[in-house]
Amino acid sequence: MTETAPIRWGASQSGFAVIDCDVHNSVPSVQALFPWLSRFWREYIEQSGFKGPSDTAYPNAPTSARRGTTAVSGGPPGSDLPLVREQVLDAWGTELAILSCDYAVDAVHNPDADVALAQAVNDWQIAEWLDRDPRLRASVVVPSKQPDAAAREIERVGDHPGFVRVFLPVRSPIPYGKRHYHPIYEAAVRHDLAISLHFGGAPGNPPTSVGWPSYYLEEYAGMAQVFQGQLMSLIVEGVFDRFPTLRVALVESGFTWLPPFLWRFDKEWKGLRREIPWTTRLPSEYVREHVGLTLQPIDGPPDAARLLRAIDQLGSDDLLMFSTDYPHWHFDEPEEALPAGLSPSLKRKLLSDNAREFYRLGVGMDNGGTP
Amino acid sequence: MTETAPIRWGASQSGFAVIDCDVHNSVPSVQALFPWLSRFWREYIEQSGFKGPSDTAYPNAPTSARRGTTAVSGGPPGSDLPLVREQVLDAWGTELAILSCDYAVDAVHNPDADVALAQAVNDWQIAEWLDRDPRLRASVVVPSKQPDAAAREIERVGDHPGFVRVFLPVRSPIPYGKRHYHPIYEAAVRHDLAISLHFGGAPGNPPTSVGWPSYYLEEYAGMAQVFQGQLMSLIVEGVFDRFPTLRVALVESGFTWLPPFLWRFDKEWKGLRREIPWTTRLPSEYVREHVGLTLQPIDGPPDAARLLRAIDQLGSDDLLMFSTDYPHWHFDEPEEALPAGLSPSLKRKLLSDNAREFYRLGVGMDNGGTP
Repeated sequence: MTETAPIRWGASQSGFAVIDCDVHNSVPSVQALFPWLSRFWREYIEQSGFKGPSDTAYPNAPTSARRGTTAVSGGPPGSDLPLVREQVLDAWGTELAILSCDYAVDAVHNPDADVALAQAVNDWQIAEWLDRDPRLRASVVVPSKQPDAAAREIERVGDHPGFVRVFLPVRSPIPYGKRHYHPIYEAAVRHDLAISLHFGGAPGNPPTSVGWPSYYLEEYAGMAQVFQGQLMSLIVEGVFDRFPTLRVALVESGFTWLPPFLWRFDKEWKGLRREIPWTTRLPSEYVREHVGLTLQPIDGPPDAARLLRAIDQLGSDDLLMFSTDYPHWHFDEPEEALPAGLSPSLKRKLLSDNAREFYRLGVGMDNGGTP
Repeated sequence: MTETAPIRWGASQSGFAVIDCDVHNSVPSVQALFPWLSRFWREYIEQSGFKGPSDTAYPNAPTSARRGTTAVSGGPPGSDLPLVREQVLDAWGTELAILSCDYAVDAVHNPDADVALAQAVNDWQIAEWLDRDPRLRASVVVPSKQPDAAAREIERVGDHPGFVRVFLPVRSPIPYGKRHYHPIYEAAVRHDLAISLHFGGAPGNPPTSVGWPSYYLEEYAGMAQVFQGQLMSLIVEGVFDRFPTLRVALVESGFTWLPPFLWRFDKEWKGLRREIPWTTRLPSEYVREHVGLTLQPIDGPPDAARLLRAIDQLGSDDLLMFSTDYPHWHFDEPEEALPAGLSPSLKRKLLSDNAREFYRLGVGMDNGGTP
């Protein structure tokens, strides 16, 4: 659990800029947030023995994280900036990496604690990550169960140039398209932030449409269905009609399910659109205009030729964005982080151009260090 | 609502036998079940004004059914055998049609009424359908919320040669793989019946993994995710290991989602199978051995070439089974009921051979009339 041997990536991406759209920065312990928590909450935490949100999107971190990513300090994988620099930023020559802090504030039932922890996490991200490496960007953590409070938190930190998106766990107690959540999108659009729907979440309701499963495999492989439900809700409820500049990233969603999903969705929309007259275009058109998906973990067939066909079925070269999902990564060799056989132009889009456009990151390496 | 103009199918399937794996026979009214209900229930129904299960898998029938399918008597589409003969059996030269009676006994909360209604529906199916046309086969309706009672109902009627499968609505309050439901599979296997998981259901819990959606489009197009959750549960819980002769038909599930679903499921199974050591093969292998899917409604891309590629991605010619989904059918012209460009051998498998094998219907036309 304390291995820190450097991971040799080996693969050179020479000639291609790399923007990594999913790197996890972990809160080492709830005490690490104390500098940004009031005396009330520090006392509350110490006296109650609260160790941070008990539910997480993943099983206990070391089993889901790659070996060798545990911090020297003993903190969880993804909690140590020097190690993240060494294993991700430097190893890949990464121009920019967008952090996904998945501290599960949505599992906290006390509504004031939920807000206080989200604020502290964002202040911690600014001080410990964004201010310490110009290659980093981050996701605003919000008390997603309370959309008005979430919007206020976006107002509070959304103009910091390091934040490029709002983190929402893809699991939620009610579908994200509902009007209940619109204050979050309104605030995000006002600050030109994307929304990222990220694998996991701890909303308290079952992760399948037929109740609680028995095994983690069902939840893990079945998360694709949760993404599908949310994407459908966002489109059907007219979120993209109401917020025409909103962009939504599906992070760790897989992507090969998208074409069949859209074939059916487009077809049924034609038959049933009378009930949702505010939608004016095919679901697939909303997706192409407003949605992006990260690459890892790849949910494709094992052979390269069929994987390329699955990518081709997306019908657009602009949707996929490179990610390592460090420290949870899902590939054995760095070469496997990218599908084999991509054309140079698609590789360039996938490695950086799509993310640069989607997150409006400016152009060229020059901008990387000067947010 | 009383149109009865015959529907001209036009397309000749000459040279090919046709087995239609999804034709809906509708209970005209709860009073139609009175000959098979005890005096207690007849009085209960009359005095309470109960009109049958209030929830159904579809919106009110005429809007989901094709025009011209309403019975002359004014009964709902699919309630009139002569019209079903004319519009399906004779029109297609159908050798055998398997009825899917979706009377929503799962929406009934009174556990004795649930059982009594399921029994009455099955007796009605025998008397009004199976005994009146040798081309018909049927699905045993069971009180699925009470697996022991469901197993008893399978015992009661399962040896009738007209029943070839057990009808379960695909939506359920807990996943179908759970041990809770195993008595149903045990009884089905004992009587050599398949299980059909059919679009819809009224279990009371939300039809998405993120809570109640707002619009029918979400539920309708999103039903594919419910099928995925159930298929995953059946495999992960070891249902096919425990019942190696069990066959499960996914009815009105669509099928283009299956390959991407299995790519991911196979991959994650390799990583997580330690928690489910009773599974010994890739999920895709269980599917190929135990599962069949009906053709309608087709969830494929609009152009024929890509639809053929989607069928090819299934990796097996044995999975798809022809269905019209009468009277809900989803195609405008009979020619569209089958994808264009199928090879003759695949067309033969799809139109009859796959169903004959899956449901063990015997060989050749001769057998059709003599169950």
